[in-house]
Amino acid sequence: LRAETMFDSELKALLTGRDAGTPSARIVRVLSERGALSPGELARLTGLAKSTVSTTLAELRKSAVIIDHAANDIGRSQVGRPPTRVVLNPVGGTCVGLCIGLNYIQVIVADVSHAVLSDHRSPLPTDYSPAKAAEVTRALAQEAYAEAGLSQENLLGVGVAVAGPVDPVSGQVMRASGVPTWAGTDIRSLFEPIFRRPIFADNESNCAAIAEMMWGAAVGEEDFVFFKLEVEGIGGAIVARGRVIAGAHGAGGEFGHITVDPMGDLCRCGNRGCLEVHASFRRALAHAETRFGRPTTADEVIGLAVAGDIGCRRLIADAAEAAGRGLGVIGSIIDPGLIVVGGRVARAGDVLLESLAASYDRHTLVKRADLAPASRTRFVTGTLLDNDSCLGGVGLVLRHHGRLA
Amino acid sequence: LRAETMFDSELKALLTGRDAGTPSARIVRVLSERGALSPGELARLTGLAKSTVSTTLAELRKSAVIIDHAANDIGRSQVGRPPTRVVLNPVGGTCVGLCIGLNYIQVIVADVSHAVLSDHRSPLPTDYSPAKAAEVTRALAQEAYAEAGLSQENLLGVGVAVAGPVDPVSGQVMRASGVPTWAGTDIRSLFEPIFRRPIFADNESNCAAIAEMMWGAAVGEEDFVFFKLEVEGIGGAIVARGRVIAGAHGAGGEFGHITVDPMGDLCRCGNRGCLEVHASFRRALAHAETRFGRPTTADEVIGLAVAGDIGCRRLIADAAEAAGRGLGVIGSIIDPGLIVVGGRVARAGDVLLESLAASYDRHTLVKRADLAPASRTRFVTGTLLDNDSCLGGVGLVLRHHGRLA
Repeated sequence: LRAETMFDSELKALLTGRDAGTPSARIVRVLSERGALSPGELARLTGLAKSTVSTTLAELRKSAVIIDHAANDIGRSQVGRPPTRVVLNPVGGTCVGLCIGLNYIQVIVADVSHAVLSDHRSPLPTDYSPAKAAEVTRALAQEAYAEAGLSQENLLGVGVAVAGPVDPVSGQVMRASGVPTWAGTDIRSLFEPIFRRPIFADNESNCAAIAEMMWGAAVGEEDFVFFKLEVEGIGGAIVARGRVIAGAHGAGGEFGHITVDPMGDLCRCGNRGCLEVHASFRRALAHAETRFGRPTTADEVIGLAVAGDIGCRRLIADAAEAAGRGLGVIGSIIDPGLIVVGGRVARAGDVLLESLAASYDRHTLVKRADLAPASRTRFVTGTLLDNDSCLGGVGLVLRHHGRLA
Repeated sequence: LRAETMFDSELKALLTGRDAGTPSARIVRVLSERGALSPGELARLTGLAKSTVSTTLAELRKSAVIIDHAANDIGRSQVGRPPTRVVLNPVGGTCVGLCIGLNYIQVIVADVSHAVLSDHRSPLPTDYSPAKAAEVTRALAQEAYAEAGLSQENLLGVGVAVAGPVDPVSGQVMRASGVPTWAGTDIRSLFEPIFRRPIFADNESNCAAIAEMMWGAAVGEEDFVFFKLEVEGIGGAIVARGRVIAGAHGAGGEFGHITVDPMGDLCRCGNRGCLEVHASFRRALAHAETRFGRPTTADEVIGLAVAGDIGCRRLIADAAEAAGRGLGVIGSIIDPGLIVVGGRVARAGDVLLESLAASYDRHTLVKRADLAPASRTRFVTGTLLDNDSCLGGVGLVLRHHGRLA
């Protein structure tokens, strides 16, 4: 009972965005954001003295708010970690991550210990309506909770990953999303009646970056750029001091809409010559079709490139060269020490990264050659490519990011 | 005596970047960063309970670490502020802001209450050497402290604003600074022997943004973009959650080096077609020279435009159109709610801002027309145009930003 009371007050403080300032509230918040942590990591991240962390952990353990961590969390290497990490007790609650994809809806249920309990996905025809999304979401969530053998009673909040900017003030999907059936949709009004819990939202690339930070290639990183190369477009996110820069209107990290040529081809966003038009992977596919004399898929071209096909490698390299021009601009603006590359094209791995890094160096201000090897900007691929946006939806709730009120 | 001990320990914690986590340390840190604050503001900014703030302020006041604020700080409107604000006691110590300009050196001395005590400047021939800078700096600092009637004994640290990126790891000015005589200079080794205190450094635009946040047009703002339009170049800074994004190599906010045309004219940075080449105010000056049949200065063109000269207004508008293309890119990446425009060209005021806002809207992702008036990105000019970089040097120390170790 005492555990529940403490849990309720600390988690409520977390979800309302208030920081009670007490050591226990600070520790619960950091564990919610980061998952399993050692006492030393907690001291560093909360700014609390080690002795205070130790006393507070004893209290939290006694009241069952935290438990020792079983070493089986996803996507996180255990090598070199001390075995004394703690996590929030999973009975504290669950979160729903909801991804509103272009042609599918995905629901992931996870608990406050960062364990993923279920993952369901429904394919849908492109340009499905918000009403249809609500209907499918309700069914998927029921299925997910039934499978996990849990009630929605202990649901803390729902984080929605949207294919476009969500205005944090109005809670509406911006017209700039380029998804006409969703422009103007009020995300909170759509999903709150289904879940009756706080609704959080951000665009899918920002969510994906949060997922890579919590479970993937950027665990332990406080500052990085996430660059998402999809076949249909380019997105991304900026993480500074462990927080995504969502932007005043939810449009932070919209790298696909960097103007490359103001009189270039029209983009779905209404501007001309955007990076995602200039560096579209569709050009690579058109060339591949000519080469093979038949339609090809992105996966096929990427697979052949990885297997060593010299033509397909060149197509990947050229797409990387074009995209790297935009990434170089991002470099001159953000100057990141780490770039995590996500999206379908990232499956090309080193074939992509080598050309992307070369193009970045050509177009950005600070040159590789002027830096000691340890200081150079690192390029890595994301590790959650399939699930990053939806997992990031879970992350919105656990990190209290993008709450719609 | 007790006051001094408390001061020493709290300020030391501040300057080493450690946060003891105690309420008094958190309050001292926030007062150092922000200057005069009310108890309510302190509660919000530290996350401490109002009762804790109240108790701690009583202790800090008793030991003379803080004092009541006399309402005469610079650049900050007193309207609507309650009279109960407190500041750090000025006897706590002084900071030196040092600006290494292209053709001058400036030294400002301020105290921990944010009061500016003296401001000295020496003109120098362009491309002066680091050794010359050290010599002039030593003399200016002695002069400044003598004028203020203070000893350098209570100097806490020196913040250096540099005309180019400073690598936070090596402490060296990057070659990308475009100032050949300074590339590779180790800022700490140059100035530490003079002051024997911690040395902080960042590029001048990042410093200027910090100054606008502490004393100028962005007081109370946590998220904004600073865009600096000089006659000789373009710079800037990104402020997210109250912190400047310095970048992994000190090159955050180098907006002048956004590639506009990769086969365009060569830039001093070694890239081609950078924004500061594309949008250089030199073009406006060349046109003005043709119009008036004699050489003209930027100040003259700006003054005539403000006075209503239709040709000079057009020259400003065209420079704004060109610069706005870069600003639009920044918009798609950062999506700021506020843009503070600094630099010499900002003296044109509304003549500049109107064209800049129009060009921004044309080139950025989220359009003004899609936003409620209260949500639209605001454009304002900076209020510290002459002194922003050097004041920001003071700010580096007070905010523990960019310490070289």
